[in-house]
Amino acid sequence: MHASNIAAHPRAQLAGVFDVVSEAAAKVGAKEGAPVFRSDEDLFASKDVDAVLIASSTSTHADYIEKAVAAGKPILCEKPIDLSLERVDRCAKTIAHTNLPIMLGFVRRFDPTHRATRAAIRNGDIGDLHQIVITSRDPGMAPAAYIEVSGGIFRDMTIHDFDMARFLLGEEPDTVSAVGSRLVNTPLMERCNDWDTVSVILTTPSGKQCLILNSRQAAYGYDQRVEVFGNKGMAISENRRTHESVRFTGEFTSRGAPYLNFFIERYAEAFNAEIGAFVDAVENGTPPEVGFEDGRLALMLAEAAGRSIREGRPVKTSEVA
Amino acid sequence: MHASNIAAHPRAQLAGVFDVVSEAAAKVGAKEGAPVFRSDEDLFASKDVDAVLIASSTSTHADYIEKAVAAGKPILCEKPIDLSLERVDRCAKTIAHTNLPIMLGFVRRFDPTHRATRAAIRNGDIGDLHQIVITSRDPGMAPAAYIEVSGGIFRDMTIHDFDMARFLLGEEPDTVSAVGSRLVNTPLMERCNDWDTVSVILTTPSGKQCLILNSRQAAYGYDQRVEVFGNKGMAISENRRTHESVRFTGEFTSRGAPYLNFFIERYAEAFNAEIGAFVDAVENGTPPEVGFEDGRLALMLAEAAGRSIREGRPVKTSEVA
Amino acid sequence: MHASNIAAHPRAQLAGVFDVVSEAAAKVGAKEGAPVFRSDEDLFASKDVDAVLIASSTSTHADYIEKAVAAGKPILCEKPIDLSLERVDRCAKTIAHTNLPIMLGFVRRFDPTHRATRAAIRNGDIGDLHQIVITSRDPGMAPAAYIEVSGGIFRDMTIHDFDMARFLLGEEPDTVSAVGSRLVNTPLMERCNDWDTVSVILTTPSGKQCLILNSRQAAYGYDQRVEVFGNKGMAISENRRTHESVRFTGEFTSRGAPYLNFFIERYAEAFNAEIGAFVDAVENGTPPEVGFEDGRLALMLAEAAGRSIREGRPVKTSEVA
Amino acid sequence: MHASNIAAHPRAQLAGVFDVVSEAAAKVGAKEGAPVFRSDEDLFASKDVDAVLIASSTSTHADYIEKAVAAGKPILCEKPIDLSLERVDRCAKTIAHTNLPIMLGFVRRFDPTHRATRAAIRNGDIGDLHQIVITSRDPGMAPAAYIEVSGGIFRDMTIHDFDMARFLLGEEPDTVSAVGSRLVNTPLMERCNDWDTVSVILTTPSGKQCLILNSRQAAYGYDQRVEVFGNKGMAISENRRTHESVRFTGEFTSRGAPYLNFFIERYAEAFNAEIGAFVDAVENGTPPEVGFEDGRLALMLAEAAGRSIREGRPVKTSEVA
Repeated sequence: MHASNIAAHPRAQLAGVFDVVSEAAAKVGAKEGAPVFRSDEDLFASKDVDAVLIASSTSTHADYIEKAVAAGKPILCEKPIDLSLERVDRCAKTIAHTNLPIMLGFVRRFDPTHRATRAAIRNGDIGDLHQIVITSRDPGMAPAAYIEVSGGIFRDMTIHDFDMARFLLGEEPDTVSAVGSRLVNTPLMERCNDWDTVSVILTTPSGKQCLILNSRQAAYGYDQRVEVFGNKGMAISENRRTHESVRFTGEFTSRGAPYLNFFIERYAEAFNAEIGAFVDAVENGTPPEVGFEDGRLALMLAEAAGRSIREGRPVKTSEVA
Repeated sequence: MHASNIAAHPRAQLAGVFDVVSEAAAKVGAKEGAPVFRSDEDLFASKDVDAVLIASSTSTHADYIEKAVAAGKPILCEKPIDLSLERVDRCAKTIAHTNLPIMLGFVRRFDPTHRATRAAIRNGDIGDLHQIVITSRDPGMAPAAYIEVSGGIFRDMTIHDFDMARFLLGEEPDTVSAVGSRLVNTPLMERCNDWDTVSVILTTPSGKQCLILNSRQAAYGYDQRVEVFGNKGMAISENRRTHESVRFTGEFTSRGAPYLNFFIERYAEAFNAEIGAFVDAVENGTPPEVGFEDGRLALMLAEAAGRSIREGRPVKTSEVA
Repeated sequence: MHASNIAAHPRAQLAGVFDVVSEAAAKVGAKEGAPVFRSDEDLFASKDVDAVLIASSTSTHADYIEKAVAAGKPILCEKPIDLSLERVDRCAKTIAHTNLPIMLGFVRRFDPTHRATRAAIRNGDIGDLHQIVITSRDPGMAPAAYIEVSGGIFRDMTIHDFDMARFLLGEEPDTVSAVGSRLVNTPLMERCNDWDTVSVILTTPSGKQCLILNSRQAAYGYDQRVEVFGNKGMAISENRRTHESVRFTGEFTSRGAPYLNFFIERYAEAFNAEIGAFVDAVENGTPPEVGFEDGRLALMLAEAAGRSIREGRPVKTSEVA
Repeated sequence: MHASNIAAHPRAQLAGVFDVVSEAAAKVGAKEGAPVFRSDEDLFASKDVDAVLIASSTSTHADYIEKAVAAGKPILCEKPIDLSLERVDRCAKTIAHTNLPIMLGFVRRFDPTHRATRAAIRNGDIGDLHQIVITSRDPGMAPAAYIEVSGGIFRDMTIHDFDMARFLLGEEPDTVSAVGSRLVNTPLMERCNDWDTVSVILTTPSGKQCLILNSRQAAYGYDQRVEVFGNKGMAISENRRTHESVRFTGEFTSRGAPYLNFFIERYAEAFNAEIGAFVDAVENGTPPEVGFEDGRLALMLAEAAGRSIREGRPVKTSEVA
């Protein structure tokens, strides 16, 4: 998907593709008419490559970021930077000197619906922000093999919601209270010491409250809602449907169409806008809208949430910083 | 229902009940603790009776109106005045001298939703009115015995929509084009020379267009919608639900609660408000919001619509006046 | 309101009224045509009184409950029983011997929308319950004089949501985590050592999670929503509007009608149904749907929530029992 | 737009561009990296051109169709074929011998929402079709220069709705009743002998009724709704919004996001799907889903509607055939 989005962007070209699974790279290259690199070294060395998009497995992100910075190439990296905050911090030090645009793939920031909800805050339409509710539920549990290496629900799934919280709050949360349950696939969650159903409260120094609800499985489809409440009003990001045909029969007096399902469809416009924002940053050499530090701060909240459940108490973000 | 509404009204008392079916009258009287009259003569002669509500069978309406006027009692009469325009005109002459408040039971005018839609016109919120769509569908075909004496769909059912059209248009329609089909119960409709599915276009001298859609049967329940469209906007009366609980499952991503069904429930607030408006008119001796002439004009549109189908052409209201 | 609801109920009669403010009692008595008692003693002694509804100030509830039980009269008492759990427990002991129906006025349990949402759980429509979100926001901050004696937001406002949580969970919560802020009226909240904006997470032994959001002020009106999420689906109680007329103009493509506002309007049907349920319980001598113990358990959750904020940690309900 | 859609289609290539305004062709060619033809002769003669899409001015459509057929090239032609039914019939004769796929650009047939509404008919979900309401309103009056050569509202605007009616009815309408008003721009409409506000009733031999409402100007944006009603239920195509963020403030309790506006945005998916359907037809040599005869029949209904207003009577389609 990223490859086609780059190829389709009016001011970008797909300079080449690399994947450790060479057949995958070959397939994408053929489809988009782009060269395939034999190694990451070739890719980073290539003069044709002005910027890199890193969508490899999580464990390789930090290495590739360091290599790309060494090669002087701007970066758009999929979240998370790494599952370990320690590794992220080490990476941060390694690249501390650079001014290259490094953008993190928190794609939901580019969704038109969430952006309109955020605009309702920024424009003053809802007044001073008091409470946020972020509901994020996947249509179905990912395969066990995925879950096992995911780093846990907070680093894998809630991390998007932690970033959304920061995107909307306009102020860093300083306390994290989380509860977690094993209700969707109890044996798998026990085996992985993970949770499939979590609720989190973030609070900020000024008293803003942000609630996050996650489930690994929603029978009715991909559920991506955000509610922001302030002293002058409220804005809600509702789910987007595949179409707007509504039914009325003897069994029900209205039934809406299915939701866009799954993230590729739901955030199609956002993935495109994300590439556009990256191209802007590369062309102008300006800092991207969402960068390395945002990746680190979201991961910190994930760490704090995990610790909150394990220790049964609210955790200050300063404890995990 | 009318009896309890009167009994419950803070400024009204149920002075007594009469019904040609004496058991029916007895039952209502007992329930509401009100006397039962032995004859309509007794009722009209009673000094305890300040005003009458006529909800008898249609064929008796005009007679009772004349008797009530003779007895000097204000009237709230259920629609229609009579199935025959000739009888209505005769009644009009008979009562021409009176200043008594005579109110017609076009209850939908008192519904909060339709009133808000009308307010959108009156307040200028939608600008100059251009088009109206009135959709009115019953949840199920009435019994054959009812249909046979109903006077046909236009006089029995569409008459409410003709009044709604007049309520909203603010200008008398001068042309009526109607089409009718026999799709719900073809044999019954053929036997009665009636239609169960009709569409009507009314136009006014200034070019306003009003479309009416009726069906004797809607599988999803009582369907009562109104759309008004003007040069600055639109307002729509949507259906009212029994409650606001919405479902989301693997089969659908949203499903609303059933509609209020049938007119007793749907227009409960309106029936109450109607009694209130009548009490106001009686107390103040002022002309009611919807009177005898409104009943006559709605019936005229019903006549014109029937003729339009039979003759396959638009009919001017002046042809049936 | 309670007086008219009783008077209007087909199987109930308003036997009399008592209020420490005698003008208030006189006014209600006159309006409903019911006798006025000179003292509570007279009321409890009267043979005409089959049952009592207690809607006096909170501090008198427990006393009146004890007196009514002594007089052998079934009780419908407004929540809360008392602001002090100790007083409630003492009252419980005093009346422990009785079999009289004692019903608590958690009116929201009788709301058609919330009942339909609960039915979606009970009928198995949403499968096993996993998460609940209860949003409850008042249209505006109550007067300072009210807030000062309210016992704090948890005992005064959230108590309804604690009962709703118990109504829906089908399992007693055992842990309460709360956060509170002073964002609507900071000086008043500081003076009262209270919060105007709170979020609470309840968890149950089986891992169900229930989130509650409260604000003393919602600019858009009385906000009463409930979301229940299970492994087969979700049901949401949406807000109820004053009417269903929707507007479309150059400024917006849709705008719904105002919400029913405030609790008298929003829960009008529920207040009526509550009286009906009480009449049923009195006539049949059966335990009411929501009783004294429900009042005590909701208060216990309120206590736990307050302690959770003050001590900055999750509080077990066993700690406050 | 068509050029980029072709270029982006995985099984199509943009073989070249021609426009009588050579700068326009040059611009599109440059943007899409496609050759520009010096004349239509060159285009039709080119071996690189497997199929043509005709999106020129209406008066040239029939000529180009004849030339493309002569050149043996499949055609996707924008509606209408011509403003004159006589010219269309002549064109039909000229190309009568060909088996080439000739597709008409009634793009709304390819919209996911309208397709889902139609599926509700085809799948039997709404039972036997009884009534259709098609509401189609432009966001604003087109420039006078456009209106003057448009051939009138029925041939220019309603023609899409006539095709939608045929798409949904599954049966040819045999009678057309229309009314027209001049309410948006009276002087322009008088000058052009045209109407800016029209309502049409189509009926079919079996008694199905289809109502069409058009306005040249809707203050709230592009309004594209379809309602189909049958004996088992109803389906409604609602408008599509630019995003799903909803607002709630002191002025309103809900306000939806703007509609997709205008046809380029609203029917973006449909324009894409249309190209896909044409590529399918070309590759398989099969008749397209919507062809020349559909163009002719829609035009016939437009003719009948115009005559219905001018002669003030329902017009049989057989009168204009």
